[in-house]
Amino acid sequence: MTQSDLKARGAGNAVLERHAGLRIDGARMIEELELLGEIGADPAGGVTRLGLSAQENAARDFLRDRCGAAGLHVETDPAGNLFARRPGPPRAPGPVLLVGSHMDTVVQGGRLDGAYGVIAALEVLRVLHEHRVDLPVEMVVVAFANEEGALIQAPFWGSRALCGSLENPLDATDRAGRPVSAYLTESGGTPERLADAVWPPGSVAAFLELHIEQGPSLERHGVPVGVVEGIVGRTILDIDVTGEAQHAGTTPMPDRRDALVAAAEIVLATRRIAAEDGVCTTATTGYLTATPNVTNTVPGEVRLSAEVRDTDPVRLARGEAVLREQCARVAAASGCRIGVRAAMRSRPVSTAPPLRGVIREAADLLGLKHRTMPSGAGHDAQIVAQLAPIGMIFVPSSRGVSHAPGEDTLPGDLVNGANVLLHTVLGAQAELGRPGGHGSPSG
Amino acid sequence: MTQSDLKARGAGNAVLERHAGLRIDGARMIEELELLGEIGADPAGGVTRLGLSAQENAARDFLRDRCGAAGLHVETDPAGNLFARRPGPPRAPGPVLLVGSHMDTVVQGGRLDGAYGVIAALEVLRVLHEHRVDLPVEMVVVAFANEEGALIQAPFWGSRALCGSLENPLDATDRAGRPVSAYLTESGGTPERLADAVWPPGSVAAFLELHIEQGPSLERHGVPVGVVEGIVGRTILDIDVTGEAQHAGTTPMPDRRDALVAAAEIVLATRRIAAEDGVCTTATTGYLTATPNVTNTVPGEVRLSAEVRDTDPVRLARGEAVLREQCARVAAASGCRIGVRAAMRSRPVSTAPPLRGVIREAADLLGLKHRTMPSGAGHDAQIVAQLAPIGMIFVPSSRGVSHAPGEDTLPGDLVNGANVLLHTVLGAQAELGRPGGHGSPSG
Repeated sequence: MTQSDLKARGAGNAVLERHAGLRIDGARMIEELELLGEIGADPAGGVTRLGLSAQENAARDFLRDRCGAAGLHVETDPAGNLFARRPGPPRAPGPVLLVGSHMDTVVQGGRLDGAYGVIAALEVLRVLHEHRVDLPVEMVVVAFANEEGALIQAPFWGSRALCGSLENPLDATDRAGRPVSAYLTESGGTPERLADAVWPPGSVAAFLELHIEQGPSLERHGVPVGVVEGIVGRTILDIDVTGEAQHAGTTPMPDRRDALVAAAEIVLATRRIAAEDGVCTTATTGYLTATPNVTNTVPGEVRLSAEVRDTDPVRLARGEAVLREQCARVAAASGCRIGVRAAMRSRPVSTAPPLRGVIREAADLLGLKHRTMPSGAGHDAQIVAQLAPIGMIFVPSSRGVSHAPGEDTLPGDLVNGANVLLHTVLGAQAELGRPGGHGSPSG
Repeated sequence: MTQSDLKARGAGNAVLERHAGLRIDGARMIEELELLGEIGADPAGGVTRLGLSAQENAARDFLRDRCGAAGLHVETDPAGNLFARRPGPPRAPGPVLLVGSHMDTVVQGGRLDGAYGVIAALEVLRVLHEHRVDLPVEMVVVAFANEEGALIQAPFWGSRALCGSLENPLDATDRAGRPVSAYLTESGGTPERLADAVWPPGSVAAFLELHIEQGPSLERHGVPVGVVEGIVGRTILDIDVTGEAQHAGTTPMPDRRDALVAAAEIVLATRRIAAEDGVCTTATTGYLTATPNVTNTVPGEVRLSAEVRDTDPVRLARGEAVLREQCARVAAASGCRIGVRAAMRSRPVSTAPPLRGVIREAADLLGLKHRTMPSGAGHDAQIVAQLAPIGMIFVPSSRGVSHAPGEDTLPGDLVNGANVLLHTVLGAQAELGRPGGHGSPSG
């Protein structure tokens, strides 16, 4: 689709048409990503910049400096979220177009997960400011605090705070028991005013998040842009297997109630649900501990966590049901007692179809191939979907690696993704301005 | 077999014939077992009396007191082994009949494993002393130090010291790095004189160990006495599975190299080797740890320890070979790299057939059914087999439980076992006195 196509389409997208030639400053953005990647660089590899830690605070300071230098206005809310906007009053009061992601990482994570979406959003806002592009719907950049929940076990902390969906937030602690309020105060937040971080209904016209794919699909298909159709729902089952701790030398094989053998059957059954039977998209056992875990004792107790994911709520529920059936089958066959408890359930979330269309048009304008795909990972966008329609753009991840030091994306792909974001912001103006024109958030 | 049968057999066992009516003092022995069980009683259940700990020292003090009260002579060697003998010179100099076991336990172990063999040996020696039974081959009671190796990871410490087969003994430490020498000094041992703990070849005529079975066979068959034909050999394989730590949501199932899935296949294959294919007697995976062990990451690395046991060296070797084949098969199918390393190999050890015969005769004399059986657990006897012929007697374990608070044996069975030990000591006199009459230690 070209500029003249757009005109011919009569979409009335005056903003996009007028600025079709606009591009972000790729070199500047790449440099900023590198500078941000030094904050929390882990001597053991990768980046360790945990949410609400001193490293995330340093990242906020960095972002504040950059925004200040660009003449943007910055503020931090009581939850530690950082917002940047152009100075002065918006052209029209009303809902804003929120764009961003998060800056925290997992332990020894990568330098792009989250950070790319924030730095690219800043670059887009800066370019628009530099070119004095007049936007009917004001764009606001957000860096959500503590998306990963690696230090304080309250993932999506910032986006939940904004949506008013944090549950008992001040009960959260680190693993040593230090309360979130202590961290929050150090992060420039205000624990006693957390309720003021909530944005009211109607205050957000839409939320856009640009992110690395964290999987191998785009690279494998040679496609630079992913148009996310939805974010998977996820159910985590905590499974306790109780057999009997027995002497490994003196207990005949038929007399054993080996909790690790039963757990191994569950690990394989979990994989089969997705890999062979296609019940849901992914099924994984990520966590397993055995007790007493010594060489000469048949394990008497095993705790494991298995999870299933899918964008379709029916398939997600079926994945959980089959996993529970498999646990019951293993219990009956092994003589072990197997307890299953849902530790977490998140519902699949769809992106807004009109925003998908705007993203596709932006990629077309730039001559970039795109591909519609699900997100297998969770993102702040799935939380903000409670409040507003969401759109998500993916760029390729080298070898699909993420949450690891080897996480990477080609610089050209990073620049392309940011330009798609720029033209999505521009293209969305008409969409968001049109009465009833944005998609409704879906559950 | 009756007294007259024995006479008719013309075995010339004058000692046994003369004392066929002798019995141990069962009430006294049961009381002593109870008193010893209070030393190291764990508030969380069972007994925690780790080798070379203050609790094992207290057990030695208890044994010293009891021996002193009985008029027996006691000494501790540089390795912390405690020996009790009747005062005065033996009837004839020469090799002794060593009888005993150990007094240390695992964490939250039982009160009988080891302790029973020591207390019963003391009771036998005391009864012989009280009745002034003249033994051509002197009986010496031994309480070996640190058989379990639960605190200082050097199992069979005391029996290895006696046999001169400790390797770099002073390098041993607890898990916090405190050296064995510090513990040993507190235990009445002498680290710098460890070499003096070694007994020379020819100094031991035979070693007898009475022990709970630690498995369910005797109880199940309703037989009070087990005649141990051999102690299983054991091979422990340390297995490292290296896959790739990947995002559990974004990595499609066919792209995974899931180390935990591969490890689960190995756990099941290990069990099958013994439980279904009968390659060797037992095969167990007791230890498994996954990395990074978090819910939303495909495990990239798993370490596990699997072990096989058998009394037949050919079957033992076959068990190891099949386990290695299975690891290679899983590696090829999963795409994971699987490294296998033998962490420990102990050879099966046979008891001396003539001593088995003496044990059977003792049980027959007492009118007790007996059953020839292997020992699936390791014992000090397997170490002493390097130095002398060994004999082992088992009594039933309730529900086969051992190394756990629920470890138990009926008092009647405990008394029966000690009487079998008494008459084995008496019956062995003729066997050990006969030139070439004792079996040779087998490897």
